Amino acid sequence: MRQDVTFRIARADDVPAIVAMLADDPLGARREGDPGDPRYLAAFERIDADPYDELVVAELDGKVVGTMQLTYLAGLSRLGAERCQIEAVRVHASARGHGIGRRMIGWAVDRARERGCAMVQLTSDKTRTDAHRFYDSLGFAASHEGFKLALG
Amino acid sequence: MRQDVTFRIARADDVPAIVAMLADDPLGARREGDPGDPRYLAAFERIDADPYDELVVAELDGKVVGTMQLTYLAGLSRLGAERCQIEAVRVHASARGHGIGRRMIGWAVDRARERGCAMVQLTSDKTRTDAHRFYDSLGFAASHEGFKLALG
Repeated sequence: MRQDVTFRIARADDVPAIVAMLADDPLGARREGDPGDPRYLAAFERIDADPYDELVVAELDGKVVGTMQLTYLAGLSRLGAERCQIEAVRVHASARGHGIGRRMIGWAVDRARERGCAMVQLTSDKTRTDAHRFYDSLGFAASHEGFKLALG
Repeated sequence: MRQDVTFRIARADDVPAIVAMLADDPLGARREGDPGDPRYLAAFERIDADPYDELVVAELDGKVVGTMQLTYLAGLSRLGAERCQIEAVRVHASARGHGIGRRMIGWAVDRARERGCAMVQLTSDKTRTDAHRFYDSLGFAASHEGFKLALG
């Protein structure tokens, strides 16, 4: 019998599977390296030690099939409200079409609400039009322009 | 003789001036409260204690005339690169038109580059079209859609 998808905080031994998902993507393929590169583990360790950062994996039948990173941002705006930012959302190619992404984002929103966050925010590359329909269907408003400046 | 604008990390006694700038804004006016509300100081204290968060003020002739918040985000993407996120950018109404915003964002970009950040990112409400031209002129690309979900 097929088990249901579960979500948990990532462990160091999940890092190669997470990096493989980041790289298996039209945009990610151009910018990722060997999943064993020690810089990935160093970044994991910083996230793992930070009380305001959570790297999450989705697991199905004992296999990592999805990932996202949650950061709880402080700020003075809105009476000092905390916001939850979602980054690096991926579902494994073999596991798409089963609502795992929807369950994962729903899990993040519930978690942010339980913490008392005033808002969940994320950005998505303008070329990812399927993702935009997905976030729209989850109630997110595309209210902002997302600006990036790459540093050479 | 008028002094030049300088930038520094905010102190607790800057909080009322920062909140006043956040509130003096077509969008901010609807969501801010009394600058003396203790929740603002609590948010300041969390930012001040976090090594990856910097609340910045611009000072001119001994007066706070601008603010922004920098957060150094960890992530596995791009070989574990750190990114600098800019939020809550404001220049005091009495000090606009003198290039203070441009100097302030330039200061943030230089600081991010010195830390070794791979990218500077920010979002801007789609109604702030003047701000979009400003970030475009500074070399930022409006490459992403920015999604927000307010939590009730």
